[in-house]
Amino acid sequence: MVGAGQLARMTYQASIPLGVRFRVLADSAADSAAQVCPDVQVGDYHNVADLLRFAAGCDVVTFDHEHVPGEHLAALEAAGVPLAPGPAALRFTQDKLAMRKELTRLGVPCPRFAAVADVADVTRFAADGAGWPVVLKAVSGGYDGRGVWVCDDLFAAEEVLAHGIALLAEEYVPFQRELAAVVARSAHRQGAAYPVVETVQRDGVCHEVLAPAPGLAAAVAEDAQRLALGVAEALGVTGLLAVELFEAGGRVLVNELAMRPHNSGHWTIEGARTSQFEQHLRAVLDLPLGAPQPAAAQTVMVNVFGAQDPDLYSRYVHVMAADPGVKVHMYGKAVRPGRKIGHVTVTGSGAGEENVLALRDRALRAASYLATGKERGE
Amino acid sequence: MVGAGQLARMTYQASIPLGVRFRVLADSAADSAAQVCPDVQVGDYHNVADLLRFAAGCDVVTFDHEHVPGEHLAALEAAGVPLAPGPAALRFTQDKLAMRKELTRLGVPCPRFAAVADVADVTRFAADGAGWPVVLKAVSGGYDGRGVWVCDDLFAAEEVLAHGIALLAEEYVPFQRELAAVVARSAHRQGAAYPVVETVQRDGVCHEVLAPAPGLAAAVAEDAQRLALGVAEALGVTGLLAVELFEAGGRVLVNELAMRPHNSGHWTIEGARTSQFEQHLRAVLDLPLGAPQPAAAQTVMVNVFGAQDPDLYSRYVHVMAADPGVKVHMYGKAVRPGRKIGHVTVTGSGAGEENVLALRDRALRAASYLATGKERGE
Repeated sequence: MVGAGQLARMTYQASIPLGVRFRVLADSAADSAAQVCPDVQVGDYHNVADLLRFAAGCDVVTFDHEHVPGEHLAALEAAGVPLAPGPAALRFTQDKLAMRKELTRLGVPCPRFAAVADVADVTRFAADGAGWPVVLKAVSGGYDGRGVWVCDDLFAAEEVLAHGIALLAEEYVPFQRELAAVVARSAHRQGAAYPVVETVQRDGVCHEVLAPAPGLAAAVAEDAQRLALGVAEALGVTGLLAVELFEAGGRVLVNELAMRPHNSGHWTIEGARTSQFEQHLRAVLDLPLGAPQPAAAQTVMVNVFGAQDPDLYSRYVHVMAADPGVKVHMYGKAVRPGRKIGHVTVTGSGAGEENVLALRDRALRAASYLATGKERGE
Repeated sequence: MVGAGQLARMTYQASIPLGVRFRVLADSAADSAAQVCPDVQVGDYHNVADLLRFAAGCDVVTFDHEHVPGEHLAALEAAGVPLAPGPAALRFTQDKLAMRKELTRLGVPCPRFAAVADVADVTRFAADGAGWPVVLKAVSGGYDGRGVWVCDDLFAAEEVLAHGIALLAEEYVPFQRELAAVVARSAHRQGAAYPVVETVQRDGVCHEVLAPAPGLAAAVAEDAQRLALGVAEALGVTGLLAVELFEAGGRVLVNELAMRPHNSGHWTIEGARTSQFEQHLRAVLDLPLGAPQPAAAQTVMVNVFGAQDPDLYSRYVHVMAADPGVKVHMYGKAVRPGRKIGHVTVTGSGAGEENVLALRDRALRAASYLATGKERGE
């Protein structure tokens, strides 16, 4: 797996019971996955020689992020390295304009969009029916660690345009909530769909996942699963595909795609028969897929973000004593304010335990205490 | 953890989400846990210098087997190494006569027993009410990889006595079935009890675990849990205690004790809120214990034993395609006939899925196919 963050760390965990050997390409030996996996190669995924050296002896190479340059993916493919997903699929996670065009061509519902180069383009996009606010997105990458800007007016848009990066404009969708449909597609083209979840975001960052999405109409859930399986097939994805969706007016629109294990699937470790990490391995190894069915009536996952105090471990005692049912997943990352350093999961089944508000409360308390040493509102 | 077999391997897996550092003392770098854990020290647990070197820098030392010589445990303790469980508790897993005497002193129901040195002792034991067959057990260790012999008559007993090892005789209990009660006790003396399970043994080797034990009377289950928690407290166990029991005539008798994660608890990885491996870590690290409640109505675990053909991986396709719900756990061990090389788990909840016969059938098929490339009866 190229990349050694928390996704690689959790994928490595899933590889152990399968008895498959797992190697990570890490930026540093201190990376989240590099701490726990014995087979680590430290190297730079921007460097094709490092990538080729890493791939030597691997049966298949997969990814914990979408940042490997397209020309390097092509070079690996040309050198006969089996990549899963392949460059033709990954391109649509690296070029958002290409993704929007392809999904539209396939008839997949998306927000209106247009490539924009200057103020005149944005003005025209808003005037032609999209209205304000306008969402500007970097076609790939971004700046200052961001790639999405919700612009209330032309002045805000000008500021983003001033950075001179390739942009597309998207209609601002007044969604009811955000959903995610995670599916897997194996090399043999077998598909499996997890229950559709609700993701609760703040400032564009996922904070909570409710699985399944509470009160979601069965028809909408089925639409979302069918859409995601269809996209995985049409784009030729091998491995996991996470489709981030807006629920608006009784239908779903595609927001983003990711072709790897995804934050919206962390709940599956405890909450589904097969975790997304095992499923990704099975898909890229061309093994039959595991059952994606839920293992609990309701599961809630909450991310843990770093705060000021790095002494997490001292807070385990409180969190574990307060709630013996909460599952703690720490990523071994140095604590920095706002950094995703772990997550907690709570499952509920039967006897009123499936009450999603009660589960959220338990998970939020645990995550908050882990992060700050305080419960919410203290 | 001293020892790097499958118990250490699975304990290591549980350590990753907790974000705790884990080191194993392995006989060889090829050991089951040594393959997957980056912090491996190769050494000999019979050698006190190796043990001391291993323990340097560990906050706590625990064990995946009970074979570290008592005098070495004492030396580690004298050197200030925190051991969990401690030598005073471990002694009762190393000396079966001491265990029987202590449990009897505590009023814990056990089969009749007596130390025996010769044919006259065995004859007297049988004549004094125990009858035949007589079970002979090595007080510690054994020979030819065995430590228990069921002797139908004096001739069979003589053969065992001829090896000149320290033995005790035990009454042969005509049990209905075998049960196991796994409990945890933390350094702070918190206790937690898993549901009592049925273990199905062949030739003294565990083949299947049914969790919870089907049809077990609530009063007997509670007795067994109370008994196990009481033994853990009385013997001062820190960590897990597995109590193997005979169910006979509506009550339970203690067969064996183990103070570590145990084969009868592997089902907890999927089947309980907290796996036995995480629980052992929490107990020895003096963290509050996790919820031992079941996560499914019924769980069945079946061991996979090596057969002739070592090419296990080629059989994954069949096993996973035939049953997407089966969870495969391989230990990375070289295949040798009769060797425990993995296990499979199937969970059932709701909609008739909790039918234990159907779950056993699924698990037995998967284990048989993994082992031999054939389903049972083929």
